[in-house]
Amino acid sequence: MEKMRPIWYEDGKAKIVDQRYLPAETRVLEVNTLDEMTHYIKTLAVRGAPCIGNSAAFGVYLGVKGRKFDTHNEFEEHFKYVIDEITSSRPTAVNLFWAANQMEQAVIEADVTDPGEYEQILLKKALEILQDDIDSCHSIGLYGYELLKNKKNILTHCNAGAMATSEYGTALAPLYVKKEKNDEFKVYADETRPLFQGARITSWELAKSDIDVTVITDSTAGYLMKQGKIDAIIVGADRIAVNGDTANKIGTYTLSVLAKEHKIPFYIAAPLTTVDFNIQTGKEIPIEERDRSELSEYGEKKIVPDEAKILNLAFDVTPHENIDAIITDYGIAEKPFSESLFKLKSQGSILKEGD
Amino acid sequence: MEKMRPIWYEDGKAKIVDQRYLPAETRVLEVNTLDEMTHYIKTLAVRGAPCIGNSAAFGVYLGVKGRKFDTHNEFEEHFKYVIDEITSSRPTAVNLFWAANQMEQAVIEADVTDPGEYEQILLKKALEILQDDIDSCHSIGLYGYELLKNKKNILTHCNAGAMATSEYGTALAPLYVKKEKNDEFKVYADETRPLFQGARITSWELAKSDIDVTVITDSTAGYLMKQGKIDAIIVGADRIAVNGDTANKIGTYTLSVLAKEHKIPFYIAAPLTTVDFNIQTGKEIPIEERDRSELSEYGEKKIVPDEAKILNLAFDVTPHENIDAIITDYGIAEKPFSESLFKLKSQGSILKEGD
Repeated sequence: MEKMRPIWYEDGKAKIVDQRYLPAETRVLEVNTLDEMTHYIKTLAVRGAPCIGNSAAFGVYLGVKGRKFDTHNEFEEHFKYVIDEITSSRPTAVNLFWAANQMEQAVIEADVTDPGEYEQILLKKALEILQDDIDSCHSIGLYGYELLKNKKNILTHCNAGAMATSEYGTALAPLYVKKEKNDEFKVYADETRPLFQGARITSWELAKSDIDVTVITDSTAGYLMKQGKIDAIIVGADRIAVNGDTANKIGTYTLSVLAKEHKIPFYIAAPLTTVDFNIQTGKEIPIEERDRSELSEYGEKKIVPDEAKILNLAFDVTPHENIDAIITDYGIAEKPFSESLFKLKSQGSILKEGD
Repeated sequence: MEKMRPIWYEDGKAKIVDQRYLPAETRVLEVNTLDEMTHYIKTLAVRGAPCIGNSAAFGVYLGVKGRKFDTHNEFEEHFKYVIDEITSSRPTAVNLFWAANQMEQAVIEADVTDPGEYEQILLKKALEILQDDIDSCHSIGLYGYELLKNKKNILTHCNAGAMATSEYGTALAPLYVKKEKNDEFKVYADETRPLFQGARITSWELAKSDIDVTVITDSTAGYLMKQGKIDAIIVGADRIAVNGDTANKIGTYTLSVLAKEHKIPFYIAAPLTTVDFNIQTGKEIPIEERDRSELSEYGEKKIVPDEAKILNLAFDVTPHENIDAIITDYGIAEKPFSESLFKLKSQGSILKEGD
């Protein structure tokens, strides 16, 4: 199976696939500076919570790369600026803050005499975050497989696949494992307005892996459920509160209500780093409101007149009651999530093939 | 208030607004033949169940216009062809079949010696259908106002406005009445994928009438309901079964489930001609499946790879249980609809301002 990656490090450079042009073009960009990385995160050239985290880690490294620091103070002052820049790029995905924090920790824990040494420490940490994400996603796939192995028709929303992480994905990881085990199954991919991550990216990566995938409009999912054509729903997450409330792409909440109505299991898949152990409920998660142009323009055409308002929420919060399980890299959390998530954090473990 | 119309008869010609170009351009097309009208119905230059009916009536007239018939048999043979052509243009909206049937009735009831006289009879009938639709929509607005007068935030889906009828609309008619009465209120318009009738047409016609309208993606509606931002939902219909099951734009079913979850009243608005008294339940309503290109292309760009399948259902069926009232031109039907719809048919009446 071809392994797809949205970000990697090669010949001393960070490279990303510019996801805004998928599937028509696979443009690979070299990212050389913090400013460039921040710009690509803001404009969604890279997207998907874990991938934003990975990109942020490299962004922090690039913010330091090649600079001379005469004193530790000088480094620290600049490093603070770097962290501020990267963490103000997008508000909802906790992985961004987690990754920035990991980079800060690496600096705090480093035992260096020359501030010039931080550059290599930060590169090493960014590469470690990337590799850990690959292992995490594979683990999510193996844990999630247990829940999905008997499901024939699976619905997903947005893209929580390889292109949202560093490989395998989160919500799509169990589907790749199903494919590796030669299960017969069918995936429905919501197109996911306004940016079509489902139509453009999920369908593209699944089709590349020879998985049977059908794209539908977001509005079609409910009717397919009513017709008995969906056996399970699995989506990713941008931030999970301690009680299990989950922020994810706008439309996820609606799917959770539809799942409840039709008695279809509804699963969240995300690495444990997506859980924000600092917040108790979803009420504390800020929801990003994006620009009107994402809805008002269709290709070159203006489709919403200027006189009409537009509300473009990028995410919504699904209450924990509507979630049947949260599949993490450290194991499967069931209700009550406020207990099971903490338990996984202290006692869970990454699963590897053959474990 | 500026009155908008999607179809009218002027200088001996049928004219339509080509709704595919709204709101960027208001292209007015002259329609001279049956073939042209069938083409415009199929390609959605005209759309909206009542407007399809009105267009079909003029299509039938145009199919006969200017032709010479030597005998009644000759006319009847050709007329059968005309009716077949127009009724095979789209499968779901019952108004199409109703209008064709009205035109057939006009021929049957006509007392003519020369078959050349049918042309004028059919024109008269088409104009009558158009005028009746205007009166019907206004009546829906007045009846619907009773249910919506205390509602501040109203959600609608697709376009069931002036541009879907001949004036006023169905679902939007009560909103125009609210505006005429200077109520303060706000409308949320689902953009309505794949063809954006909400973004392009509903927002355009409401904004032109100075109604406060906000466009959202279809996936956003559920989350707004959860936040308590929606007080009522009103949509149109393409066909209603005797038990109240209602076919309407794909996504309507999902809204009805969300309405139930959030205890928000869910209303259908349609002229009584949208009720198909020949079918008992929604199971008998054929659902049109449209071309993949409506989803796979975004402006000039291909956004779904060829390797991925696409399922493009144009409509869904909302079960009567999820509907709080059906607002018709003959009055408001409540549950059980199988009784109330028949009752309106025999005892209801068109409402006029001041009634």
